[in-house]
Amino acid sequence: MERLDAIFSPKSVAVVGASTVPGKVGHDLFANILRGGYTGILYPVNPAARSVLSVKAYPTLKDIPDPVELAILVVPPKAALAVVDEAAQKGVKAVVIVSAGFREVGPEGRAIEESIAARCREAGMRLVGPNCLGVINPHPSVRMNASFSNRMPAPGHISFISQSGALCTSVLDFAAERDFGFSKFISIGNKADVDELDLLRYLHQDEDTQVIMIYLEELRRGPEFIQEVKEITSGDRPTPVLVIKSGRTVAGAQAAASHTGSLAGSEAVYEAIFKQAGILRVDSIEELFNFAGAFARKKTPLGNKVAIVTNAGGPGIVATDMTISSGLELARFREETVEALQSHLPATANLHNPVDVIGDATQDRYEKALEAVIKDQGVDGALVILTPQSMTNALETAKAIVKIDQRTQKPILCCFMGIFDVSAGVKVLQEHGLPVYRFPEHAAKAFGALYRYSSWLNRQKLAQFSLQHDKEKARLIIEAALQQNRMALTEWEGAELVRCYGFQTLPSFVASTREEAVDYAASLTFPVAMKIVSPQILHKSDAKGVRLNLASPREVAEAFDTIVANAKAYNPEAEILGVLVQKMAPSGDEVILGMTRYPVFGPLLMFGLGGIFVEVFKDVEFRMAPIGRNEARRMIRGIRGYDLLKGVRGRPEADTGVLERYLVSLSNLVLDHPEIKELDMNPVLVHPKGSGATVADVRVILEPVKGL
Amino acid sequence: MERLDAIFSPKSVAVVGASTVPGKVGHDLFANILRGGYTGILYPVNPAARSVLSVKAYPTLKDIPDPVELAILVVPPKAALAVVDEAAQKGVKAVVIVSAGFREVGPEGRAIEESIAARCREAGMRLVGPNCLGVINPHPSVRMNASFSNRMPAPGHISFISQSGALCTSVLDFAAERDFGFSKFISIGNKADVDELDLLRYLHQDEDTQVIMIYLEELRRGPEFIQEVKEITSGDRPTPVLVIKSGRTVAGAQAAASHTGSLAGSEAVYEAIFKQAGILRVDSIEELFNFAGAFARKKTPLGNKVAIVTNAGGPGIVATDMTISSGLELARFREETVEALQSHLPATANLHNPVDVIGDATQDRYEKALEAVIKDQGVDGALVILTPQSMTNALETAKAIVKIDQRTQKPILCCFMGIFDVSAGVKVLQEHGLPVYRFPEHAAKAFGALYRYSSWLNRQKLAQFSLQHDKEKARLIIEAALQQNRMALTEWEGAELVRCYGFQTLPSFVASTREEAVDYAASLTFPVAMKIVSPQILHKSDAKGVRLNLASPREVAEAFDTIVANAKAYNPEAEILGVLVQKMAPSGDEVILGMTRYPVFGPLLMFGLGGIFVEVFKDVEFRMAPIGRNEARRMIRGIRGYDLLKGVRGRPEADTGVLERYLVSLSNLVLDHPEIKELDMNPVLVHPKGSGATVADVRVILEPVKGL
Repeated sequence: MERLDAIFSPKSVAVVGASTVPGKVGHDLFANILRGGYTGILYPVNPAARSVLSVKAYPTLKDIPDPVELAILVVPPKAALAVVDEAAQKGVKAVVIVSAGFREVGPEGRAIEESIAARCREAGMRLVGPNCLGVINPHPSVRMNASFSNRMPAPGHISFISQSGALCTSVLDFAAERDFGFSKFISIGNKADVDELDLLRYLHQDEDTQVIMIYLEELRRGPEFIQEVKEITSGDRPTPVLVIKSGRTVAGAQAAASHTGSLAGSEAVYEAIFKQAGILRVDSIEELFNFAGAFARKKTPLGNKVAIVTNAGGPGIVATDMTISSGLELARFREETVEALQSHLPATANLHNPVDVIGDATQDRYEKALEAVIKDQGVDGALVILTPQSMTNALETAKAIVKIDQRTQKPILCCFMGIFDVSAGVKVLQEHGLPVYRFPEHAAKAFGALYRYSSWLNRQKLAQFSLQHDKEKARLIIEAALQQNRMALTEWEGAELVRCYGFQTLPSFVASTREEAVDYAASLTFPVAMKIVSPQILHKSDAKGVRLNLASPREVAEAFDTIVANAKAYNPEAEILGVLVQKMAPSGDEVILGMTRYPVFGPLLMFGLGGIFVEVFKDVEFRMAPIGRNEARRMIRGIRGYDLLKGVRGRPEADTGVLERYLVSLSNLVLDHPEIKELDMNPVLVHPKGSGATVADVRVILEPVKGL
Repeated sequence: MERLDAIFSPKSVAVVGASTVPGKVGHDLFANILRGGYTGILYPVNPAARSVLSVKAYPTLKDIPDPVELAILVVPPKAALAVVDEAAQKGVKAVVIVSAGFREVGPEGRAIEESIAARCREAGMRLVGPNCLGVINPHPSVRMNASFSNRMPAPGHISFISQSGALCTSVLDFAAERDFGFSKFISIGNKADVDELDLLRYLHQDEDTQVIMIYLEELRRGPEFIQEVKEITSGDRPTPVLVIKSGRTVAGAQAAASHTGSLAGSEAVYEAIFKQAGILRVDSIEELFNFAGAFARKKTPLGNKVAIVTNAGGPGIVATDMTISSGLELARFREETVEALQSHLPATANLHNPVDVIGDATQDRYEKALEAVIKDQGVDGALVILTPQSMTNALETAKAIVKIDQRTQKPILCCFMGIFDVSAGVKVLQEHGLPVYRFPEHAAKAFGALYRYSSWLNRQKLAQFSLQHDKEKARLIIEAALQQNRMALTEWEGAELVRCYGFQTLPSFVASTREEAVDYAASLTFPVAMKIVSPQILHKSDAKGVRLNLASPREVAEAFDTIVANAKAYNPEAEILGVLVQKMAPSGDEVILGMTRYPVFGPLLMFGLGGIFVEVFKDVEFRMAPIGRNEARRMIRGIRGYDLLKGVRGRPEADTGVLERYLVSLSNLVLDHPEIKELDMNPVLVHPKGSGATVADVRVILEPVKGL
């Protein structure tokens, strides 16, 4: 923490590589700090210059007679290593390496970067970059603009962490136009040391930061990221975190042979991490701004009931549409509210939501209407829409809105439509921290984001399951297969494995001969199912290795021969261990539970409706293990087809309680046994409420774990 | 047409109700025309003033000694009627009524509006409004700003039709900021005479108009709208039409209904109309601008392969994501292209799509890179992204882009990220008509819209089916039911009806006694299905009136009694006509075909996957009848679950050919018989390719047609 203070609020800064040539990064960056009004002491380091921009220069860091807290390096990679060494010796607390040419250019650059990071760790110096744009802290007590951009943003309460340096310049440019204030602004580049998690921890403690925006290209930490960020977004003093993560479509392209693998690209990993950490993901750079503006006001709605006050019908309708499609509802006003509106508004006004105060409305009418609706207990917040019309006074209306905003804890978001005619009003709103937009759809979407965050803060917390598993038996099943060098469990072994963790499977038996098959089938009730058992045949249907509804001993005998013949035809090399004879699955809704293990991030769990739903509609939810009952419930409720499980049109409600337990058990199973690389239960048949669920098929792929 | 010229390009204008009091609409509107530099002759009409803004005033229209082409009325409703009369006598060609207080305020206002419209019709005068903002034509030969807004937009090639007056002011305000030029700009208010279709016809012929934007709250014409607009958007000299239609959600539709005082048609009706007319629907006001800017350049891509040229990785990735999610693909460059890029770009540049010309790129590098990729035969257009960095010269880069744009027919869309640093470049691009955006996602989405339009222009045109129907027999079935005053056909009658139009149904028979049921069942192959037949029981499953898979005479007999008993218990009043004994449906994919008839708009056809898909996923497509084979195919391919019908994971491909024929037949059936109010075939079982489809259940609701 303390060492990160040296990055954002250093008492002294040395720019190593400060240049006398305008246009060079080493010059411009130095000039930006100097001209930005930095409140500490600034030293240029340049062996060839006596001064830079009238400031006495030093040949090396060591030559500076005073302590230096932050060293900013604008020197080539190889030189950087030597400077870092020197900085360590001088007791510098933190280093920012702006220059590029490190891991992003190849192995040699990566090696230098790793040496530098190691040297910093040894010396207890924090390192930002390399290959970054720099750091900005606009707070009046610091005023440090250590960046390429000569535009120092206004001080404010939004912090921005960017993995792309180029994006920073554009963001600063937009921010200037919108009067968007920042608390801390940092470009993290290659993240050789300081990464987004370090910064999230730091900014969460920072009293000036009320919302954190991140532009992210990749994460390098999984489980600890989720665990810690969850606390940041919803623990004591929660701080909302908004992320734009690029690479949404490119990822997931590597179609693994396995079923789950083909759905769960690494995009699914990020979706899961953001959901579990309580991070709001936004779709575009513009949304990042729009939402951050709303969060900076520090008011979250208690519910999703919105009141709209407008002076024009059309934009009111657009706002209504976008309100609904952002997951919100239009509030229904109480009688007192309608009466209050009636007493203040003309006869032609609409007294119901959306309230239309009519084109000729002055500030008074807005004030009275907004006051009436915001008082209503059934209203969780308001959207105020203003279009410039002949009687409109944008400035005075803004002042009236500010007055009401200061008296309520409910969020008020404004949409002043237009640029020139409304700019005086917009300015007043911005000065008072009120979120203001140009288009009603942006205001409605931002309110939707506030509500999503409020739902996250107030999410249900269930008692956890107390589960007993036969971990040792499961270990033996896995070990036996690995000792035989088999990476795929047979269906029979898979069923054994999941039974150890409390899953209900179908009674079954692997028959080696048709006689064994007929005998076992007779011991069950007809009809039965039969499936090929071969470690080399994973997709049994493709091999025509599955027969269902076999109703007599004769059919069973016949099926045995056909299945074995089909399997041999499908893959002459396949080792055929026998044919599984299985009780026919009782009816139920088909769902799928799956897991794919990712390096670094660990096991990704999947839940969805089975069969064609997963194939065609990709209606699945992902989470990273471990999960408890709360996440399990959110997974189940998160799929679009959840209504189906709740029961529609006379269908019985499915036993989703047991599904919650199954998901938690799956999470435990794959965490207990890191050798499980992939696991699919497809389908799992969920029976009506109270009747449990049956795993009808299991597929397990193993991978030996090094060092175990 | 000629009469609409009088609205947009009148040689003389009279403002009736021109006022001497600034702030009054009658004053401001007159002032805006006068100060806007109108090239014709302007007359104020005001009985109480000698002049308005130094222009000689006349007590009445009649007193004006010269001919008046356009009269703009700013007078109360009752007075307006008299003025319209006078205008008719004077030979005025067109009237714009700006004032409100007509149909939107109640029956009295509506009556006045109707009288005025009738009077205008008689006199052959066209009428715009009432309750509108006015008309603007910025063309240098006219320069008429007959609106409340004192901001005259620049001349350009985009026309805007708005049903909301308030929105117009905001739109003009945005347009001013973005240097957005307009051809014609009109607020249509209550549409007592001139409506969007009249204007679309007119603007389609207008040489200055290259794209038409509409803000729509409701349509009052259905089939002719589709027919004519289809010609406008894709006939000779196609003109793209973009619409924002509010009231998308139920709440939004209610707000629209209370605002316009009209019964808004269902959302599905509008979706269908827009699709069939080739209108591009946009989600927000901002998108309307973003897309219109791209269409105004008049270049549509031949395919969906996009090249991205960027000087920053991050925004390039965002653009890539949005390109893919806008239905586009990243082009794969040919070898020559990669070689050309290699010869012009530094070693660290990315030579593949998205092309990264690196942060220090000057205009030359952009020019060479863009030139290389735009030449590539596999590239259909380009997105150029520029972020301001130290070496960036936005102005010169813009000039280089313009140069290349002038040499190619492929669309080039630009994203200059930032406001201040890039404004000189943005201005140059705008001056040359190049679409330029602030965020990469906007540019990518706009390209997606261009491609959607290009797909519409180049859509497949199939030979139509030649179908024979037994229209007369169908008429008799319907007549018989109506004569008995029955509004619901029984399932048996419904099956008869659709068979007349070539649908295949299941062999079936209505048994009145258990003996009849057993006898008929025996004549089919077991198992059979049985269903209650009662005009009062439409949802047979809810009444437990359906039994499937009955495998023996004993089961059939038992089922007969149970079904009848269940039906009586469900609705003791129900008239039970018997029990339908039916061959069990052969297996197939379940789909649903349906129709609901709407006043004004006519029959809305529906197609979707059946069963739970329609219930839970709402995966359906709508079209207005009539449709031919082309629309039928687009409906089938339009559902998300289409992959299912194409065959996935070893499932056979379904007979979608017969589905196309069924949809066309359904369209014919409901057009031939206007008494059919609703019709549902659910499920229709589609068998594998070549094996047809079977209608397993039909539900038909009738309504007598007045005057037939």
